[in-house]
Amino acid sequence: MEKFRFLTSGESHGKCLTAIIEGIPAGLDIDIDFINNELKRRQQGYGRGDRMKIESDTVEIVSGVRFGKTLGSPVTLVIRNRDFENWQKIMSASPDDKTDDKSFSIYRPGHADYAGSIKYNQKDLRNILERSSARKTAIEVAVGAVAKLLLKVLGITGTSEVTQIGTACCPDKFHQEIDLVKEKGDSVGGKFVVVYKNIPVGLGSYVHWDRGIDGRLAQAVMSIPAVKTVEIGDNPLGLCGSQYHDEFEIKDGEVCRKSNHAGGIEGGITNGQDLVISAVMKPIPTMISPLNSVDSQTGENAQAHYERSDVCAVESCAVVAEARVAWILANEILLKYGADSVEELKNRI
Amino acid sequence: MEKFRFLTSGESHGKCLTAIIEGIPAGLDIDIDFINNELKRRQQGYGRGDRMKIESDTVEIVSGVRFGKTLGSPVTLVIRNRDFENWQKIMSASPDDKTDDKSFSIYRPGHADYAGSIKYNQKDLRNILERSSARKTAIEVAVGAVAKLLLKVLGITGTSEVTQIGTACCPDKFHQEIDLVKEKGDSVGGKFVVVYKNIPVGLGSYVHWDRGIDGRLAQAVMSIPAVKTVEIGDNPLGLCGSQYHDEFEIKDGEVCRKSNHAGGIEGGITNGQDLVISAVMKPIPTMISPLNSVDSQTGENAQAHYERSDVCAVESCAVVAEARVAWILANEILLKYGADSVEELKNRI
Amino acid sequence: MEKFRFLTSGESHGKCLTAIIEGIPAGLDIDIDFINNELKRRQQGYGRGDRMKIESDTVEIVSGVRFGKTLGSPVTLVIRNRDFENWQKIMSASPDDKTDDKSFSIYRPGHADYAGSIKYNQKDLRNILERSSARKTAIEVAVGAVAKLLLKVLGITGTSEVTQIGTACCPDKFHQEIDLVKEKGDSVGGKFVVVYKNIPVGLGSYVHWDRGIDGRLAQAVMSIPAVKTVEIGDNPLGLCGSQYHDEFEIKDGEVCRKSNHAGGIEGGITNGQDLVISAVMKPIPTMISPLNSVDSQTGENAQAHYERSDVCAVESCAVVAEARVAWILANEILLKYGADSVEELKNRI
Amino acid sequence: MEKFRFLTSGESHGKCLTAIIEGIPAGLDIDIDFINNELKRRQQGYGRGDRMKIESDTVEIVSGVRFGKTLGSPVTLVIRNRDFENWQKIMSASPDDKTDDKSFSIYRPGHADYAGSIKYNQKDLRNILERSSARKTAIEVAVGAVAKLLLKVLGITGTSEVTQIGTACCPDKFHQEIDLVKEKGDSVGGKFVVVYKNIPVGLGSYVHWDRGIDGRLAQAVMSIPAVKTVEIGDNPLGLCGSQYHDEFEIKDGEVCRKSNHAGGIEGGITNGQDLVISAVMKPIPTMISPLNSVDSQTGENAQAHYERSDVCAVESCAVVAEARVAWILANEILLKYGADSVEELKNRI
Repeated sequence: MEKFRFLTSGESHGKCLTAIIEGIPAGLDIDIDFINNELKRRQQGYGRGDRMKIESDTVEIVSGVRFGKTLGSPVTLVIRNRDFENWQKIMSASPDDKTDDKSFSIYRPGHADYAGSIKYNQKDLRNILERSSARKTAIEVAVGAVAKLLLKVLGITGTSEVTQIGTACCPDKFHQEIDLVKEKGDSVGGKFVVVYKNIPVGLGSYVHWDRGIDGRLAQAVMSIPAVKTVEIGDNPLGLCGSQYHDEFEIKDGEVCRKSNHAGGIEGGITNGQDLVISAVMKPIPTMISPLNSVDSQTGENAQAHYERSDVCAVESCAVVAEARVAWILANEILLKYGADSVEELKNRI
Repeated sequence: MEKFRFLTSGESHGKCLTAIIEGIPAGLDIDIDFINNELKRRQQGYGRGDRMKIESDTVEIVSGVRFGKTLGSPVTLVIRNRDFENWQKIMSASPDDKTDDKSFSIYRPGHADYAGSIKYNQKDLRNILERSSARKTAIEVAVGAVAKLLLKVLGITGTSEVTQIGTACCPDKFHQEIDLVKEKGDSVGGKFVVVYKNIPVGLGSYVHWDRGIDGRLAQAVMSIPAVKTVEIGDNPLGLCGSQYHDEFEIKDGEVCRKSNHAGGIEGGITNGQDLVISAVMKPIPTMISPLNSVDSQTGENAQAHYERSDVCAVESCAVVAEARVAWILANEILLKYGADSVEELKNRI
Repeated sequence: MEKFRFLTSGESHGKCLTAIIEGIPAGLDIDIDFINNELKRRQQGYGRGDRMKIESDTVEIVSGVRFGKTLGSPVTLVIRNRDFENWQKIMSASPDDKTDDKSFSIYRPGHADYAGSIKYNQKDLRNILERSSARKTAIEVAVGAVAKLLLKVLGITGTSEVTQIGTACCPDKFHQEIDLVKEKGDSVGGKFVVVYKNIPVGLGSYVHWDRGIDGRLAQAVMSIPAVKTVEIGDNPLGLCGSQYHDEFEIKDGEVCRKSNHAGGIEGGITNGQDLVISAVMKPIPTMISPLNSVDSQTGENAQAHYERSDVCAVESCAVVAEARVAWILANEILLKYGADSVEELKNRI
Repeated sequence: MEKFRFLTSGESHGKCLTAIIEGIPAGLDIDIDFINNELKRRQQGYGRGDRMKIESDTVEIVSGVRFGKTLGSPVTLVIRNRDFENWQKIMSASPDDKTDDKSFSIYRPGHADYAGSIKYNQKDLRNILERSSARKTAIEVAVGAVAKLLLKVLGITGTSEVTQIGTACCPDKFHQEIDLVKEKGDSVGGKFVVVYKNIPVGLGSYVHWDRGIDGRLAQAVMSIPAVKTVEIGDNPLGLCGSQYHDEFEIKDGEVCRKSNHAGGIEGGITNGQDLVISAVMKPIPTMISPLNSVDSQTGENAQAHYERSDVCAVESCAVVAEARVAWILANEILLKYGADSVEELKNRI
């Protein structure tokens, strides 16, 4: 059983998103403003649609925290959907409210609509859209914020940065690239990097394939909606061993490195250098100029359904990745130090 | 609990590598020649060192199979180390055999030596080298071969191909590139692609982050020793939504796609197209021209230990990735179809 | 990963109890009245305290269900605490509300107070009481009710019955026994039996110790607060093999049994007979005539804290056990049949 | 992921039993004589059959240990079947050796034959017998012995004792009871108790049902072949709260208890008292006077197959339970202290 484990739930237009986190040591200070600020960071970014303005997510803590500190019991986080009154009937749990309003049947390429409707035997593709939406990453960021508060106890901090949007590799050109794409009714993806500092030596392991922290990080980042490529450290493609590897040296009596191409992981274990993980996000599949598709009900060619969407969400995606890396690190920290309270954890560092 | 679960063990120069696989349906034909052939494929490849000739791995099945068919009970695979007589004393389990022969203390950059010796509190870096070695991937390939035999029941087949070695993107130049690097006493990595065909629609899911088959595949591939980059389908970097997404069309009354940029996965679920996953392997860190390093015992600068190694192992790495993708697919197949015997599985397809 | 997995949360006097269930096939009819009736069954029983009258638990479904059917996405259940307005400040998540009101420091024997306060480094024993309370079993019963709805698809049904209260083995004497104990300010436990019918042959397995359904059931029942003894089928103590084992015979051309001493499980697998599992619940540790104890703050002898409690909760405990057995069965059913939708499940039975 | 995880394999008459244990901290002294002695303890006991004399199990360590100490890598234990030459053809993995020798088709009541053959779609019941046999507990005891060596680091020690055989509650009468049953060609079960001392406060938890150490212990003990009843501490049936609960008192300035009815666990956590867990083993189902049964091939009534067996194996079962409790404790210790090496573990106690 993982130490830091959790489940999330909630549909895109449902009443709320919920997460239950189990395994957090007792005595951790839960700074709700910090969590809300992480949610805000996720909602920002040039290229986001109007929904972001409606949402302005804030978290409510309904269990596991008393007087600002964790109890050791499961922590429940809730983000209410501020627009729910407009969706109450459409997303109702009650059979009495059944309606075809907002239902659709044309597969959206790039989404889970096609495979999801076959897997779960659903005719109304809304039943797929609602959970496969990236909306669920809001509560994931809240979970990540709690993980970050735990990492803070060890002085570990994380940031992220967008490094490419479409074909633009220079931050000055990002807005211009997005505007251009928006004009065409198209969408665009990009690349970002997540960096965590002050990582202890020895998280993860080479002793068994599923203990490797590189694999665990890759899982967490690759499963973010729209991420298709994950990279740890610098891409070694085209480099020789003598160019790529991070040599050791003694400096002021300490074991040091001359570089960090490996991104802080060798042999599946953290080596004490900065943890560096990059990812490429594909262009958002929902576009104003719709893609060619098929209507699952008529069996005829059709054009994909357009639901209010963003042109570019790479900044947001980077914040989600930052959060997910925090999950993995929090779990590894607790596996390594095994503490039931923050005091105990501090004593073991 | 995973359906297809297993543990592997064994040190690089130990008596044997072992795997126990638990959860294989009963009645599966175990073709030992197929497994041995997969082991052979892993050992081949231009640029491999001499050890490959010594090894010539073959598997022995010591449980879970009777008269060529699985029993439903755990399957145990053993690969004996043919060179063990030369290492018997050095790798002995007995305290009476304690020796410093073959011990070393200079960290090898790019390996787990530094972090591993801190984590596991070891002075002799051989105690790290032995399990962090890529030797353990031999038994992983054997496990993958068993998974492949299960996939065959559903008609699923996999292959892999090297697409780049060092700076050479054209297969005709690969040997030349390796020879060149070898002459310099250096090492080189590369890129490969794994493709599986006949994948059913609906493996994995979007309903919870850890159900995404993209993440699970990424974990399996990224945690292969030396892999630093994983990609599903074509890299979308620089493409607009209208260029990247795989549009649907009706063709001969069937729902078809015009392309497969997504590599067979949308929203964390397989969509019935070919599964395509690529990875970049870093250059092998053990080189004849040694890297600068530090001696952990003297605290002084030193040059890294050289243990017989390869110049390039990208082909081998591709075979390992192929095997690991088979694990993930076998597990997902069993989660989806849930069969206790192969007959039951066939009835549910 | 388990197929039917879930997390629960919530403190005894917190805002609400929550559960997120992940892995339920799509298309399952969720009858909210059935769930509420299960909650009601848990609250009944002679010997329960006044709190039961305040609570009158009802469930709210806030995700995973649309128009009465599951979507395949995580199902979130919430039971609000009807008395929360009286506890809002005392159980507040905010550091600004910190108060010593309702705090206590005398260990209650038979509860987790002593061990919990050491483990989680807590001075105020309320921080232990709140989650270790049996109150959390309310949401567990709701989760069990959802599992029961899944089992209903296969025609599996469960019931439970109290078979002993204190020293009374005859149902006619139960109320009398409870009244007697209540008069003395004491508490009393008892024994109950859970029976599930129409169990398919082949749930669980002997192939690995942790696949045994007997062990999984025992875990689920033994970890109910206050349960100390678990029994599958009839207690074989004192019987010879010839007396205990369930012989086979052919009857009307069918393989039949002459008895069901084994309680439906042989070798860790269900054999198609009724599943029978009994448990003994210890007397409730919170009593009006308080137990001798120690004050953790003063280090002096003291008498245990009394918080409104029941005299006997065996009936309630039986309902909780019934729910937990449903969890295990639902998980095993999904492992065996592996369906993503109820239609698929029906096709595989 | 559990910290102390393992898989076991092997058929009753197969070449060997194997276990891979993953997650043991580095630097643990592996005393092979201790492991072998535990194996010997399992084989002893009045009432065991002749096979015990043939077997005389000893363990071989083929990975994870070097010069007497664990490396942190997976530990592989092998117990060879000394009688294998007589079974080589019958249990062969090769399709070329297919034979009906030693096959049988009459269900043995009390065994997994009936359910197992349906589940795994097998005609030859030997394919069920071989893995469902209690023979596999030999390697489980070896795994438990390794766990015990880890527990020893914390000063935790375990023992077990038979408390009842058949109807005999007095040890003086045990042999007589067994002789009597043997004469009749019958078999007999009994009850035993396992006690572990020096348990730290705070293993397990009340925060989530599956963290309760009571449930985990119950799973481990109930899933031992033939165990049908598990009890933690004294059976509370018939006792009032004032009689059962373990009151606290201050004695010489220390918090003490006046009794240990709870068996060392309150609210799912260890409370520092001795851990006491009892179980009832059913009579061995294979008896010389055979049970009535059915032939699965002819569909007619028949008498159960007799394979060399024991009359009573309660002592052996107690040793297995002792081993399994050690697994659970080792895992909980590592979850709580989280150490990667024994030195680290010692520092955290």
